[in-house]
Amino acid sequence: MDIIVLKPGATEEDLRHLVRKLEGRGLRTHISKGTERTIVGVIGDTSQVSEDEENAIRVMPGVEDAMRILKPYKLASRDFKKDNTLIEVSGRVIGGKRIQVIAGPCAVENRALILDIAAKVKDAGATFLRGGAFKPRTSPYSFQGLGEEGLRYLDEARKETGLPIVSELMDARDIEVMAKYTDIFQIGTRNMQNFRLLLEVGSINKPVLLKRGLSSTIKEWLMSAEYIMSRGNHQVILCERGIRTFETSTRNTLDLSAVPLLKQITHLPVIVDPSHGVGKWDLVAPMAKAAVAAGADGLMIEVHSNPEEAWSDGEQSLRPDHFERLMGELKTVAAAVGREI
Amino acid sequence: MDIIVLKPGATEEDLRHLVRKLEGRGLRTHISKGTERTIVGVIGDTSQVSEDEENAIRVMPGVEDAMRILKPYKLASRDFKKDNTLIEVSGRVIGGKRIQVIAGPCAVENRALILDIAAKVKDAGATFLRGGAFKPRTSPYSFQGLGEEGLRYLDEARKETGLPIVSELMDARDIEVMAKYTDIFQIGTRNMQNFRLLLEVGSINKPVLLKRGLSSTIKEWLMSAEYIMSRGNHQVILCERGIRTFETSTRNTLDLSAVPLLKQITHLPVIVDPSHGVGKWDLVAPMAKAAVAAGADGLMIEVHSNPEEAWSDGEQSLRPDHFERLMGELKTVAAAVGREI
Amino acid sequence: MDIIVLKPGATEEDLRHLVRKLEGRGLRTHISKGTERTIVGVIGDTSQVSEDEENAIRVMPGVEDAMRILKPYKLASRDFKKDNTLIEVSGRVIGGKRIQVIAGPCAVENRALILDIAAKVKDAGATFLRGGAFKPRTSPYSFQGLGEEGLRYLDEARKETGLPIVSELMDARDIEVMAKYTDIFQIGTRNMQNFRLLLEVGSINKPVLLKRGLSSTIKEWLMSAEYIMSRGNHQVILCERGIRTFETSTRNTLDLSAVPLLKQITHLPVIVDPSHGVGKWDLVAPMAKAAVAAGADGLMIEVHSNPEEAWSDGEQSLRPDHFERLMGELKTVAAAVGREI
Amino acid sequence: MDIIVLKPGATEEDLRHLVRKLEGRGLRTHISKGTERTIVGVIGDTSQVSEDEENAIRVMPGVEDAMRILKPYKLASRDFKKDNTLIEVSGRVIGGKRIQVIAGPCAVENRALILDIAAKVKDAGATFLRGGAFKPRTSPYSFQGLGEEGLRYLDEARKETGLPIVSELMDARDIEVMAKYTDIFQIGTRNMQNFRLLLEVGSINKPVLLKRGLSSTIKEWLMSAEYIMSRGNHQVILCERGIRTFETSTRNTLDLSAVPLLKQITHLPVIVDPSHGVGKWDLVAPMAKAAVAAGADGLMIEVHSNPEEAWSDGEQSLRPDHFERLMGELKTVAAAVGREI
Repeated sequence: MDIIVLKPGATEEDLRHLVRKLEGRGLRTHISKGTERTIVGVIGDTSQVSEDEENAIRVMPGVEDAMRILKPYKLASRDFKKDNTLIEVSGRVIGGKRIQVIAGPCAVENRALILDIAAKVKDAGATFLRGGAFKPRTSPYSFQGLGEEGLRYLDEARKETGLPIVSELMDARDIEVMAKYTDIFQIGTRNMQNFRLLLEVGSINKPVLLKRGLSSTIKEWLMSAEYIMSRGNHQVILCERGIRTFETSTRNTLDLSAVPLLKQITHLPVIVDPSHGVGKWDLVAPMAKAAVAAGADGLMIEVHSNPEEAWSDGEQSLRPDHFERLMGELKTVAAAVGREI
Repeated sequence: MDIIVLKPGATEEDLRHLVRKLEGRGLRTHISKGTERTIVGVIGDTSQVSEDEENAIRVMPGVEDAMRILKPYKLASRDFKKDNTLIEVSGRVIGGKRIQVIAGPCAVENRALILDIAAKVKDAGATFLRGGAFKPRTSPYSFQGLGEEGLRYLDEARKETGLPIVSELMDARDIEVMAKYTDIFQIGTRNMQNFRLLLEVGSINKPVLLKRGLSSTIKEWLMSAEYIMSRGNHQVILCERGIRTFETSTRNTLDLSAVPLLKQITHLPVIVDPSHGVGKWDLVAPMAKAAVAAGADGLMIEVHSNPEEAWSDGEQSLRPDHFERLMGELKTVAAAVGREI
Repeated sequence: MDIIVLKPGATEEDLRHLVRKLEGRGLRTHISKGTERTIVGVIGDTSQVSEDEENAIRVMPGVEDAMRILKPYKLASRDFKKDNTLIEVSGRVIGGKRIQVIAGPCAVENRALILDIAAKVKDAGATFLRGGAFKPRTSPYSFQGLGEEGLRYLDEARKETGLPIVSELMDARDIEVMAKYTDIFQIGTRNMQNFRLLLEVGSINKPVLLKRGLSSTIKEWLMSAEYIMSRGNHQVILCERGIRTFETSTRNTLDLSAVPLLKQITHLPVIVDPSHGVGKWDLVAPMAKAAVAAGADGLMIEVHSNPEEAWSDGEQSLRPDHFERLMGELKTVAAAVGREI
Repeated sequence: MDIIVLKPGATEEDLRHLVRKLEGRGLRTHISKGTERTIVGVIGDTSQVSEDEENAIRVMPGVEDAMRILKPYKLASRDFKKDNTLIEVSGRVIGGKRIQVIAGPCAVENRALILDIAAKVKDAGATFLRGGAFKPRTSPYSFQGLGEEGLRYLDEARKETGLPIVSELMDARDIEVMAKYTDIFQIGTRNMQNFRLLLEVGSINKPVLLKRGLSSTIKEWLMSAEYIMSRGNHQVILCERGIRTFETSTRNTLDLSAVPLLKQITHLPVIVDPSHGVGKWDLVAPMAKAAVAAGADGLMIEVHSNPEEAWSDGEQSLRPDHFERLMGELKTVAAAVGREI
């Protein structure tokens, strides 16, 4: 709340009342009386004025609107930290010149399958392994994940391939068990504004991959990153995964313009999940290439040895041979924009 | 998945492969060969076919698309239960002829204020008291609620006024303490797909007020109700509170057509929260009347003795005198559509 | 463009350059140097600054953002004209205490049918007859309307029933022929930003019913009204007919909150078309009642003697007996909010 | 309408009534009676069943829903024509291996400027010149274009540089004059469903660049192409330019996934306009590269010698030196995906 616009009929008393309120908060004001409106510029550390106080000011007599000029997030802003945040996990750096590729199945279905997929994505050049042990599903009658058993299989895959593990955290009560087996905690799209969960992962010492909410603005997304960072954990990776729009011929609408926009306003690394973004395996490769061309620091891609038999998201999973071919194509595109893969 | 459409180039082998797969699941098929497409009707209890199996079928060779004709929810469907579900709380019935009005502040700010507001909304005719003790806030720097202290004040207000309490549950670990002080558990818009939380409130014996997610379809909303009901708790109240659209001149777009649509397809009661729906106090009254005219079973309205000093949502709160006037107007509108208030 | 925010690194030269530019346009400035940003308030008749100049200012060196505080529409604004605009057509007043009801089929299909429907809606209490002679259809293979023949049938129905005619204008070249047979020109949702057409109906002396565009903001909608009014025709009726959102269980999402919001910011009458808004005949009645409760000045409702045989929009048309029952119910709701029907 | 689902309570009479109706249209039926629903498959040339007849069937007694399996567009479909459509204009082929780049200012402002920009974009490697002579503007008070004078300047620029001209047609009455000076007729986003205009450009022998509507689905967009093609003009170029979503930090949301999806379902060339897609000049370059990586056949980019002085869209225009650098970068990205520029 840095600019306050008064109504045409606001009185001098309304204005004095407002100025007193602001001064009471240690702020100074600049008053511009125009022909149609009076505008009050607020000077001082307005970042300490909460959203609530801002709303309260909006309903004061004589006030028409209050606008915030400064960004509501601080720690996540590039104004706060000029240099890119680099997040290192087992020798891999996220946010640097090299593009990191997180690949694997939607869910861990059984031991043999995850070991098989892990070996194949490793061979094709993936640098992280993904796989869900706890799965958010729209229907209570769908497969909900193997739980800790799934995590143990991921751990075994990690030992065999050396690939660090990315897996989703759905409940704060699972933090301890997940911490044993995973290297990056994923916060899923449906939990992007589960503020209690954000505060909890803000208190641990593990990188957090924060997916964008289905209908979250970029500002709200950065506010959720701010939640995590406000507790001390600055290792946040943003993951664009498609937003909900009126278009239904793709599962979501992958908002690739979020990538270069985020690179301007935040220092945090930004990766893209084209699999969820489009929801159809045969659109994944072109969108993965587009993501790299747009400046993404990494990709998250669903790969399954046998999509036809997958227990979830088979429709959008690449077969290992398709993934291998894509990795080859990505190398050329990455080079064309001055990156490595 | 009840109808499967084959691609123009699908082979006889593709078709046999598909039929075998379906028969393996105990289903029968009806094959219609058209001039341009072959269509496979699936007969039997397809509600047992999970979303995952449906997706797997979509990627089988020769398959172009698979469509579900039957609704994915069962317990929440009016096909399952013809009569309206009536939920009784301290002698008040939600879902019957009488429209219930839940009123109170966004957050419990202090003891005096909640007692004052409670007394005033009671006098004006409200039948339930709302107030948040745990608050989901976009910014980590905003007021997050008084926690258990706030619950105790609500309890005191309940004792003084006799109004049952509606308050939001944000974390499963708060269930025990909340159960002591509240009568209806609210699941907020950001947690509508927090599936673990839904399962937990499905196991308790308290009515659950389930707010619609910011960008949730009606089908997804009913699937979340199904999550709760699948654990045995059938006391679910649906609350429309506005969806996110491109329009920014209101906080959200209140989707009142959801009310008559839901009354057709589900037996659960449906209420409306116009305060969050529009986000501006001076639009609350007309939209509350419209909600009643559209057939809502109840209203949830933010009231604050001094909106200018409110710690959250002051912009959309009615003053007690405005609320009292609105209650008078609502009585007439309710009578005009054969309801009482 | 009434407030300009400078970047943190803006130089004194940037600021001087900006001030000179504004002064060259006859405007004065108020400069507020805050701890983090410098803000320039622009004083004078900024409504003369075009959208283009505003954009040009946004890319000046040192400028971070430029915001318009004043509304971009003038003639349509309630600031410009305090009293409600009343539009009289053949003795019927739109915008007054009495709610006008425009009813009839989507398209004029043949002479007998339109005469039949006209007589029935007249008997039930409708005050205007609607019917399309030129039809916008998504598919080139759908029925496109009877053209002038249809208009002649409408004219005949007008003579028989006395109901004034509302029909859609799709092309400026049809203005002359339409003017002979219709009383209110409808501009359809797909033409809300057909600016050439708006200018042409701005030059004639007939009321214009301007439907909201499928994804138009309220501000854009009023700017389209402004286009018409800027040419001298101030008889503009706004018609809310549903917006496009992610929800697909209704044809569109009827934005009823637009009604009270528009009544605050414009003096033009506002009516609602629940038929297109929901797209399902059995949701039309509750939403028509809700529209009246929300404060609409009129309704536009599709009625067809035999929806099953309708050539367009049969799905959302009421049968005459349903329409008659609805008219009875609307009377009670209108009375409950101090209106007549 | 290829599959019809009956309600649970549909009678044998309802079914016979439906079958008779379909047989009356020369169609055959396959009836599948399931445990919960009866499904009627419709066999024969259902593409001749209009949208209207489909809607009429939806309201027949006993019918719950009717679904179309086959695509509603024919001429635009890849099923109809397997090979890519190549459109040749003055020796340049749109839709082939070489990516075409259309560059120039939003509007033609004066003779000197358009000649200057034309020369510069030609030097940088652009293959077409864009520039508006008739401009659709949200406000009636904004610059509306120079009209025929602007077209003459474009013609002069064409003669000097050899670049073919792309310019927007807003009104059918301008076709004749535009045809003298332009090589490709652009149909703007607000006219994508101006069906009368589509039919008119369907009757001329000029390529048409059809921009996607602000909130148009891919299916609706192809139906608009079908309108043009149904009149004989098969030279349609599709241009993705961003859709309207809830996100406001970019002007629109550029839907790049439309590119690979369209390449699957239609034979028409697909180009991308990143300037309107993002609305901020410093996001144009990464999104142009992403568009090429995603498979676009061309780009449309706003370039202005002096964006700060531009009369429209200055905010999103590249300066000639930025455009030149981008052209160099695009060559590398194009090569990386097997294309030329």
